[in-house]
Parts: sequence; structure tokens; C-alpha cells
Amino acid sequence: MTTTEAGTGSTGATPCHGEAAGADGSPEQVQGHGHDHGHGPHGYSDQKDQHLKRLRRIEGQIRGLQRMVEEDVYCIDILTQVSASTKALQSFALQLLQEHLRHCVAAAAVKGGDEIDTKVAEASAAIARLLRT
Amino acid sequence: MTTTEAGTGSTGATPCHGEAAGADGSPEQVQGHGHDHGHGPHGYSDQKDQHLKRLRRIEGQIRGLQRMVEEDVYCIDILTQVSASTKALQSFALQLLQEHLRHCVAAAAVKGGDEIDTKVAEASAAIARLLRT
Amino acid sequence: MTTTEAGTGSTGATPCHGEAAGADGSPEQVQGHGHDHGHGPHGYSDQKDQHLKRLRRIEGQIRGLQRMVEEDVYCIDILTQVSASTKALQSFALQLLQEHLRHCVAAAAVKGGDEIDTKVAEASAAIARLLRT
Amino acid sequence: MTTTEAGTGSTGATPCHGEAAGADGSPEQVQGHGHDHGHGPHGYSDQKDQHLKRLRRIEGQIRGLQRMVEEDVYCIDILTQVSASTKALQSFALQLLQEHLRHCVAAAAVKGGDEIDTKVAEASAAIARLLRT
Repeated sequence: MTTTEAGTGSTGATPCHGEAAGADGSPEQVQGHGHDHGHGPHGYSDQKDQHLKRLRRIEGQIRGLQRMVEEDVYCIDILTQVSASTKALQSFALQLLQEHLRHCVAAAAVKGGDEIDTKVAEASAAIARLLRT
Repeated sequence: MTTTEAGTGSTGATPCHGEAAGADGSPEQVQGHGHDHGHGPHGYSDQKDQHLKRLRRIEGQIRGLQRMVEEDVYCIDILTQVSASTKALQSFALQLLQEHLRHCVAAAAVKGGDEIDTKVAEASAAIARLLRT
Repeated sequence: MTTTEAGTGSTGATPCHGEAAGADGSPEQVQGHGHDHGHGPHGYSDQKDQHLKRLRRIEGQIRGLQRMVEEDVYCIDILTQVSASTKALQSFALQLLQEHLRHCVAAAAVKGGDEIDTKVAEASAAIARLLRT
Repeated sequence: MTTTEAGTGSTGATPCHGEAAGADGSPEQVQGHGHDHGHGPHGYSDQKDQHLKRLRRIEGQIRGLQRMVEEDVYCIDILTQVSASTKALQSFALQLLQEHLRHCVAAAAVKGGDEIDTKVAEASAAIARLLRT
């Protein structure tokens, strides 16, 4: 994979934008940036659909939890379903994180300069937040 | 608080039913059991509503995650929202667990016999599942 | 199981002392209390030895981590060992917690009064701390 | 690879070694890269000492847990100390991981080729193991 491909690939799942993120990554800017720097439409929408499928499944699990509470299902059985939903959220986070390391962090390393430090600090902070929950 | 009150309180949020849970706690049985053993209608529906409010908030967070993915929000910002949703699920689980210890486990201890062993083993396994995720 | 048995059993692994813990559980008081309320010497020292064995194994794992760092072992291999040590600590915590629910919390429920509320709140807070790490 | 060779690794705190990454990454190249990006032996031993200090502190906490068990300290107080030790282990893991991303993963990205995929998969698996505990 060439540097250029790495740059393109880096927006495969979610946009990479060190500056926007570092400085004042407002949703608008973030989206704009994501679109500006173009998605390989195919690989892109594939991954995006996969993420949305996962999240819709999790949304269904949360609605299932509401039914369980409404139907007075046994507490322990509800806790088992909560564990399953938490695990599904963690797996989604791990998938996103892996793509981020593979594309955004790698692209920053290739690009050189200080951006890699920002990206690594940012990713480490995100991992810490995942561990703390 | 008397044993009887504890027994009633024990179905305050979710039904306590050692046997149904131990043997074959099918949702039907579970609900039946929960209803049979009556809910102090007030405290009951209060807690139930509180649980449902929490879960609807979490469902909203999951839909928010879907929007973030659709709008190509920056990966790290999505991970932050995932951490928040996981934390909210864990808090819901802790709330359920505390009510379960306060009511079902305590009631089993007061009742005497082996049920307390089943209840404690069951609760410990649920805590282990929460820790492993 | 009678209240008295519950009371004795409750110091099987670690002393139960709601007031001492609630008020000012100083190590001295805690130990004194633990000893005053007597350990079934056998079951007691068995569990205690088991806990100490687990903790010595974990201490050995931590020393192993120091050797790995000194010998410049590959980062990922060190992280794998950290995960194993964390898991071992969590298992130790779960074992302690289960004994605590089985003995101290159950004894408080049998005893009646408000102590059960303190015990359950205390245990729930401990579970929350374990989840947050 | 010997300890000394590993000691000249590119990561400052822990070596990056291609053979672990498989594919075409030779340790020499990776280390060479590390040196290009200037980890003086000083920064290196500084980080190493910092890691060892952290681990000795954790070892002390584990010995403290053994004393608490021997002295029949209240179960809940032991659990609080277990949470502190787990948190300290997680912080150590996060520090190692951040250095690994900054040095080994970044070096693999700069080097190009498939090694970055191996490194990212490896790091993601390590993060998953940390999350699962």
C-alpha cells in the first residue's frame, strides 16, 4: 500500500482529520472534512453498513431489555442481557479503533511531523475511556 | 422491616423466584411468578418507570451512534459516545443488582434453607459476567 | 441455617462488622471484631490459605512482569501478562465478594433491622469500583 | 534475539521486533528506524525505570493485600485495595500500549508493506484482552 493509498484508505471507515480533531473538531467540520477527503465509495459504504448493522442489533437488544423490564423478567436474566449488550458495544468500539489505528494513525505516521503524537495520545485516551467503563 | 415486607419488597423491581430461575426460568413462568407474588403497585411502578427511562435514554444514545456513523463523525468522537453508552448500561446493571441483593438475596437469607446459596451463586455469576465485559 | 450459624459462618473468610465498617473500621477494631466473633478455625484457615495462595501467585506474576521489562520482552507479550494478572485479581475479588454476600450480607438480612441496607449499599459500591477498573 | 539486541530496539521502552510481526520486518530495520527517530539510551532507561517503579509499587500493593487477608481486614476494605491494584495494572498497560503505538506501530507504517497490518491486528488483540478483563 502506498502513502497515497494510505491517505485515501484512512477515511475508509471514519474520516481522519488531525487538525479538525486537535483544534476544534465540531461535528460540521468533522463531517465536512470527512467528505472533503473523499471515501473510496465501495470499501467505505461496506464498512459503514457493517457498523450500522451492528448498532441496529444493539438498539434491538436495548429494546429487548425494555420489554424484559416491562414483563418483570427475573433480574438475573436481565443482567445477562445487559452483559451481552455491553459486550456488543465493546466489540463495535474495538472494530472502530482497529480501523482508526490502521488508517488514521498509520497515515499520520507516514505523513510525518507531530500529528502522529496527537493521534496516538488521542487513541490512548479513547482506549483509557473504554477500559474505565 | 419485617420478613413479610422484605418478601413483598423483593419483587419491587423484578420478581424473585429461586426455583423458576434455578430450574427453567422461562419468561412466562418468570412473569407469572412475578405477578403471583404481587408488586407493591406504587414502589414497584416507580422503580420500573425509572428503569425504563434509563433504557430509553440508552436506546437514544445508540441511535445517536448510528447518526454519527452515517455522518462520518470522527472515529474518536464515536468511541467517546460508545464509552458513555457502556457506562450507562453498567449503571443500569448496578442499580438492578443492588435491588436484587436488597430484596431477592436478603429474602432468601431470611427464608433460610439452601435458597441463599443458589441466590448468591447466581448473583456472583452475574457480577462475573459484568466484569468480563 | 439459623441466625447463629449465619453469624458464625459470616466470619468464615473475612470478619463481618457492619458498625465497625460503617463507623470507623480501624484495622485494630476490624481484627478485634473478626477475632471476637470467632472463626470456625478449620473452614476459616482453609479459605484464608486459599486466598493467600492466590495472592502469592499474583505477586509472582507481578515480579514476572518486572523481569519482562528488564529483559526488554516485546511490549505485546508484556500486555498479555498484564491481562492475566488483572484477570487473577478480578477472580480473587469475585471469590471474596461471593463469601461476603453469602456470610456478611446474609447474616445482616437474618439479623433484621437497617444493617442489611448498609451492607447492600457497601457491597454495591465495591462492585461499582471493580467495574470501573 | 538476545536481551542486548532487544535493548537496542526502536521503542524506547520495549523493543519492536519484526519476527514477532512476521512478514518481512527484520529486527535490524525496525531498530534502525527506531534509532533514526532518536531514542537515546537515556530516554530508554528512564522509561524502563519508570515502568519498574510502577510494577514495584503494584507488587507492594499485592503484599499489602496478603497482610490484609492475614489480619482478617474487613472484606470490603480488601476489595477496595484490589480495585486500586487493578487500576494501577491498567494504567501500566495503557502506558506500554501508548509507547507501542507511538514507536512500533508508527515505525511499521513508515516502513510500508504488510507489517502495519500485523502490528495493528496485534495491538487490537491486546486491547481486546485488556477490555475483557
